[in-house]
Amino acid sequence: METKEKVKVGLIGLGQRGNGLLPNILNNDALITCICDKFEDRIAKIKKIIKDKGFEEPFGTTSYLDVLDKKPDCLIVATSWNSHVEVALAAMDRGIPVAIEVGGTHNIADCWKLIDTYEKTKTPFFFLENCCYGKDEMLATSLARNGLLGEIVYCQGAYSHDLREEIAGGIDTHHYRLEEYKNHNCENYPTHELGPIAKVLNINRGNRFLKVVSMSSKACGMEEFIKKTPKYKDRLANVKFKQGDVTTTMIECENGETILLKLDTTLPHLYDRNFTVCGTEGVYCQTTKSVVLDDGRYDHEKDPIEKSFLNQKDYDEYLPEDWKGITQEQIDAGHGGMDFVMLKHFFKYIKNKEEMPIDIYDAAAWMSVTSLSEESIAKGSIPIECPDFTRGKYKNRKPLDVLSLPTIVKK
Amino acid sequence: METKEKVKVGLIGLGQRGNGLLPNILNNDALITCICDKFEDRIAKIKKIIKDKGFEEPFGTTSYLDVLDKKPDCLIVATSWNSHVEVALAAMDRGIPVAIEVGGTHNIADCWKLIDTYEKTKTPFFFLENCCYGKDEMLATSLARNGLLGEIVYCQGAYSHDLREEIAGGIDTHHYRLEEYKNHNCENYPTHELGPIAKVLNINRGNRFLKVVSMSSKACGMEEFIKKTPKYKDRLANVKFKQGDVTTTMIECENGETILLKLDTTLPHLYDRNFTVCGTEGVYCQTTKSVVLDDGRYDHEKDPIEKSFLNQKDYDEYLPEDWKGITQEQIDAGHGGMDFVMLKHFFKYIKNKEEMPIDIYDAAAWMSVTSLSEESIAKGSIPIECPDFTRGKYKNRKPLDVLSLPTIVKK
Repeated sequence: METKEKVKVGLIGLGQRGNGLLPNILNNDALITCICDKFEDRIAKIKKIIKDKGFEEPFGTTSYLDVLDKKPDCLIVATSWNSHVEVALAAMDRGIPVAIEVGGTHNIADCWKLIDTYEKTKTPFFFLENCCYGKDEMLATSLARNGLLGEIVYCQGAYSHDLREEIAGGIDTHHYRLEEYKNHNCENYPTHELGPIAKVLNINRGNRFLKVVSMSSKACGMEEFIKKTPKYKDRLANVKFKQGDVTTTMIECENGETILLKLDTTLPHLYDRNFTVCGTEGVYCQTTKSVVLDDGRYDHEKDPIEKSFLNQKDYDEYLPEDWKGITQEQIDAGHGGMDFVMLKHFFKYIKNKEEMPIDIYDAAAWMSVTSLSEESIAKGSIPIECPDFTRGKYKNRKPLDVLSLPTIVKK
Repeated sequence: METKEKVKVGLIGLGQRGNGLLPNILNNDALITCICDKFEDRIAKIKKIIKDKGFEEPFGTTSYLDVLDKKPDCLIVATSWNSHVEVALAAMDRGIPVAIEVGGTHNIADCWKLIDTYEKTKTPFFFLENCCYGKDEMLATSLARNGLLGEIVYCQGAYSHDLREEIAGGIDTHHYRLEEYKNHNCENYPTHELGPIAKVLNINRGNRFLKVVSMSSKACGMEEFIKKTPKYKDRLANVKFKQGDVTTTMIECENGETILLKLDTTLPHLYDRNFTVCGTEGVYCQTTKSVVLDDGRYDHEKDPIEKSFLNQKDYDEYLPEDWKGITQEQIDAGHGGMDFVMLKHFFKYIKNKEEMPIDIYDAAAWMSVTSLSEESIAKGSIPIECPDFTRGKYKNRKPLDVLSLPTIVKK
């Protein structure tokens, strides 16, 4: 493949997330040559969208194996959580580079299958954790890399997203979250916050997760929501939800840092990832969009915390180039621009055969937290040991950030 | 004692906290008739302050037993953490109502001694958790009691207070925190956030703590601080700290709610108690001073969280009368007014022989979290069962808020 050629993408899964990725693929250095979904109507709809945008109509199929036979340059998998692994294994077995959407896994054995297949085939694998490329996450990482936060000792994050409508709506939209929330109780969606935290802490690259402990509150949010929502009131009246409204998870790392995650998706509130990085010289907090350093700017005893709100704009010079030069179109294409930035770099990795900065070991370590947290909760919040999916290789793997970050030298 | 008479207080412990309480005692319906500290210079200083304010010079002594012999109407104990229990036991044994300052305990047996002595003597006991009377905490509690937050399922809070100077300064000021941080690793100061959370959740009054799990990060903050602070650099050069910089604790309650606590006292940042109450109809968050309800005011999907910042002022009508009518002098007297409000009500309980809304069972349950978290951390973050200090009485004890809260009827 010539560098000037566009990357030919097979897109598997044309639901909500497949639709979201579509413009970000087409706005980048890529073409969608094959599409696949189990629902024919989705295939027809996406074919039309792609044609209407002036591109060649892609090959459409209800079987992802047909897509693999067409040998695209890479596969992007945006199916429901529980089918990512199967498709990724098949793609790697056939030597087709594959990127899978995020989600947790209830099955540690699946993670090992990913690892074993990758190590056997060496087929490039990428985990589409867009938040690793997020503006706030990149700013905090850059502050950390530039030493402004000192030695990092603690990180926290959350997936606080009011998904009550999406979960209940699964009865009409086939959304897998409905079944998930009925049948499981765990940190079911850890990677949006854990991904960027793991990158900051160099997990699988000199550091690793040691243990996970989780606790879940009672589950009241969905039932209350259904009771007061006419369109679901009768149809979902007898549904019981196993998933607690708020699940908190603590993770200990080998280098002594600790991590706190909060899943909070069935109560009313505004969206928040609460990405927080705490070090001996300062703290970054995404919720308040603030940076507080040990530099005398604030009186830590007397200044109210509001004084620091939204001050992160004063640190824009620490942003990577991709974020300094982002356009409105790229921002509007999805999740405030991070989908565009992530896919731009993913296609670059594919074209230049670069090392994936979010790889199979990261995917396994992050996704497995779902399963580990489920076991912890089921056993009364006992600590569960984390597998080392690198089998010791983490000790010698060098840190690798997802984007090149500026080095700011202060006079 | 006539209702019009002032309450005669014996004040034990004249360090930082004793000094802070002093104006709030004198501004209230009380007199300080006896003072006690192990340092003579402190006694002389406080005698002078009280005289200079136009009050009679109190009796001063280095032995709290002398104060008990004087039989004041009540004792207020603001000594170091590890001596609260001893003084409280002696006071209860002599039938002198006693209020002790907050702090955790490393010793569950001490909690049982408090319980047993109280149950034997029935001497009134109060736990001086001022944050239970805080404006934000009272607002959130009132929103909850008025049903605006729906069914409460989860609460969180923090003691995020940059105490590096206070801890290191212990080498000069006798502050007990220095020894504490050298020798222990635990949630050493849980009550500022756990107290108001426990009140909201009716702990010991229909509900109880079931188990505690804690995890601590590595300890780097103090050593970094000492290295870069000339006045401590040499004198504290070889000191090792056992206390992790950030300790997170999860607590499960019998009624299915979960609680998250964060201790964060040796890293640079602004003060934050992060008091957060989450229910099926809404959330209150102290950090952002915001209330988000399921009432259509915000679009939970599209509105950025900043839109809710500082909106709690729109809910002022839910504040109790004490906070609606607070004066600048009362606010300035300590901790933004909550010391004044708490002591005003404490003296009222004493004068009218009212039931203490923060009692011996609360003190034991809250303080014991320090010991339980220490055991959890020492054993690798295993869950530790919480004792039921009420011995089953919690099942029938009726909820009792610290202040009378308004009932707002919406048309």
